[in-house]
This record gives sequence, structure tokens and C-alpha cells, in this order.
Amino acid sequence: MLKIPSVEKLIHELCQLPGIGPKTAQRLAYRILRMKGYSKRLRDSLEQVEERVHDCPECFNFTDNDGPCYFCLDPRRSSQLLCIVEEPSDIDRIEGSGAFHGRYHVLHGSLSPLEGVGPENLKIAELMDRIRNSKSGGNPVEEVILALDPDLEGDTTVLYLVEELAPLGVRVSRIAHGVPLGSDIDFIDNRTLGRALENRVEL
Amino acid sequence: MLKIPSVEKLIHELCQLPGIGPKTAQRLAYRILRMKGYSKRLRDSLEQVEERVHDCPECFNFTDNDGPCYFCLDPRRSSQLLCIVEEPSDIDRIEGSGAFHGRYHVLHGSLSPLEGVGPENLKIAELMDRIRNSKSGGNPVEEVILALDPDLEGDTTVLYLVEELAPLGVRVSRIAHGVPLGSDIDFIDNRTLGRALENRVEL
Repeated sequence: MLKIPSVEKLIHELCQLPGIGPKTAQRLAYRILRMKGYSKRLRDSLEQVEERVHDCPECFNFTDNDGPCYFCLDPRRSSQLLCIVEEPSDIDRIEGSGAFHGRYHVLHGSLSPLEGVGPENLKIAELMDRIRNSKSGGNPVEEVILALDPDLEGDTTVLYLVEELAPLGVRVSRIAHGVPLGSDIDFIDNRTLGRALENRVEL
Repeated sequence: MLKIPSVEKLIHELCQLPGIGPKTAQRLAYRILRMKGYSKRLRDSLEQVEERVHDCPECFNFTDNDGPCYFCLDPRRSSQLLCIVEEPSDIDRIEGSGAFHGRYHVLHGSLSPLEGVGPENLKIAELMDRIRNSKSGGNPVEEVILALDPDLEGDTTVLYLVEELAPLGVRVSRIAHGVPLGSDIDFIDNRTLGRALENRVEL
């Protein structure tokens, strides 16, 4: 207890962030107090993000453009390939791989009946509309790649989407799961190794 | 690269904080974007801290009281015992021990000729004045406990303070350094173990 109410309130707020416990929050609060001008810069930056950032009307990635986001505007990207991700941050991971040059669609979550997240809470209807419109627009989506997390919610969402996408006549694929590069087979869990064997690639 | 300038600016600002690298900052920024109302609460809290928190005129701890801080106002604390610390956050550590019931004095740093921090940059003149005034005020400081970090800067500051405090006729002590409780002697570094042997306590 610091006996400084306003600092304790700041520590409480910082503790809401992921991975920041009371001790880290205290360290951050003290550092903020000692960094001249930083508090104002951080506040301005937070305010700008809140004012400017919104969902892209096309793919629901975050953007601070007026219209569609950077990826939807890029003419060098193929509109025939659509990568479906759960969160905007996943796009950054996939871009990092350098292996995808199509467009994205962000669901903003995954199906979770236990937590009351149904299809109507995700951008699934928007995905269907987008694919249908692409067909009438003359630049049809041909393949949908599902890059969802390999957990219960991700698997559920994959099953649901495969069923929903079937009538639209697009190819549907899911990113491969298996042994990560640079790892040691000794330390890989049973389910991952099972999946890696199942999905083995012929050489 | 997220291609969202305002979010990238926020990530840049978050990276200024200790222990927060680009990846953590990105995770925090995305979380902030998704937490409804959080950005505003954090901003308000940062603003309050900036507006209200200032140095205690007595001990230079942080406070948002109008006058002296919580510890300087507490009548149950002994004014005869003064604990000198480098940073306000150190007070919290010492309070946690429950072993000190005197008052504090925060130097706001330690002597570091290499980084150009001299006695005039610390609250050392204020400490001398405070001890002198306590003598004329009828409630004299009798012992000064130095709770400075056991590093080069802390040691330098201890040497300097011992010399400065000598003419004032107060007892000067330094907190003990040695093997931490609950640790394993196997893993203690040589210098700490050497100090623990030197400062052994007769039983």
C-alpha cells in the first residue's frame, strides 16, 4: 500500500492489462511519475487511437483510414484468396510469415457456446455477403483459408464455417498443424504429434 | 508492421515503459482497443496522477496530500529514526517488512559521477537541513538508517553521507547485507557470501 490514492488508482487500472500484475503495475506507475512529459504523450496517443481507429468496412481489421484498411486497398493483393482470422493481431503474424498475398477477414472471436458467443456475434454473415458479392462483382473469391486457433473454439468455428461455406462453391482449407520448426520432437505434446503424423506430407 | 499509424504510435509509447518490448506493447495496444471504456479510464487516471502527485515537502516521497505525505503526518511514527532511501518505491518495500516505524527521506537517486549525478542533484542538502531543524525543534533525529542499494552508486552515496552526517552528531547505520532468507547458500554469489561472513552476528 502506497497511501497515495491517485497512484493506487493508476496501478489498479494498469492491472487490468494482460500480463501486468500488481508488482509490475507499481513499477510502471512509478516510472510514469518520473518520466517528464510521458504521461501526456501516452494520454494523447490513447485518445488518438480511440478517436481514429475503427473496423475496416470490408474485412473488419482495425484501421484508421477513412475507408477500407491498408490490406483491402492494396491492389497487388489477390482478392481470390481470403484468409479468415479470429483477431486483427493474427494478421500481423500471418504477414510476418511472408507466405500469404491475398486478403483477410477478421471474425472478431470464435464460436464459444459456453461463453454465449454464437455465429451472430462474429462477422460470419458479413463473410458470406462478402463472398457472394465478390461473385457478382466479377472478381470472385476462390479459396478461403481458415487460420483459426487450434483450440476447442477454433475447431468449432472451423466446423461451422465449412458447413456454411459449402453452398457458396469456394474451396475451403485450414492452415496445417504439426511440429513447429526448430523444435525438438521430444518436447512436442501427444495431440500435436498425432496431428503431424495424420497430416504427413508425401515427399 | 500493423499499417495503422495511430496504433503504431501507441505501441511506440508503451515500449518506453520498463520491461515492455514491442511484442508485449502490441498485445497491450490490441487489448486496449477491445476493452470498452478502458482507454478513457486509463487516461483519466494518468491525468489525475499528473495533476495531483507531487513531492512531500518534508521527506520528498510522492504524495497527493496538500501538505506532507502519509508517513510524515502519522503521529505514531518516531521522528528520532530516519530511513534514507533512493526512490519512493523503496518505502513500500521497507513498509512491507513491518520492521521500521520511523520516518523516511527520499534522495531521488544515488551519486553517480559517471552519469553526472552529484550531491546537488539529490535531496542531500534538504536532509541536512531537516536533521539540523529537528535538533532546534526539540524532537531531534537520533539515528539515520541508510537503506540504499548495494551497488556502486549506493556505496558511493553511503560513503558521502557518512562523511556529511558526522558533524551533526547522529548515529548512522546501514541495513545489513548477506544471504537472503529462504535461499540456498549454493546459489549465493561470492561477494554476498563474503559480506555475510564479514558481518556475521554473534549468537
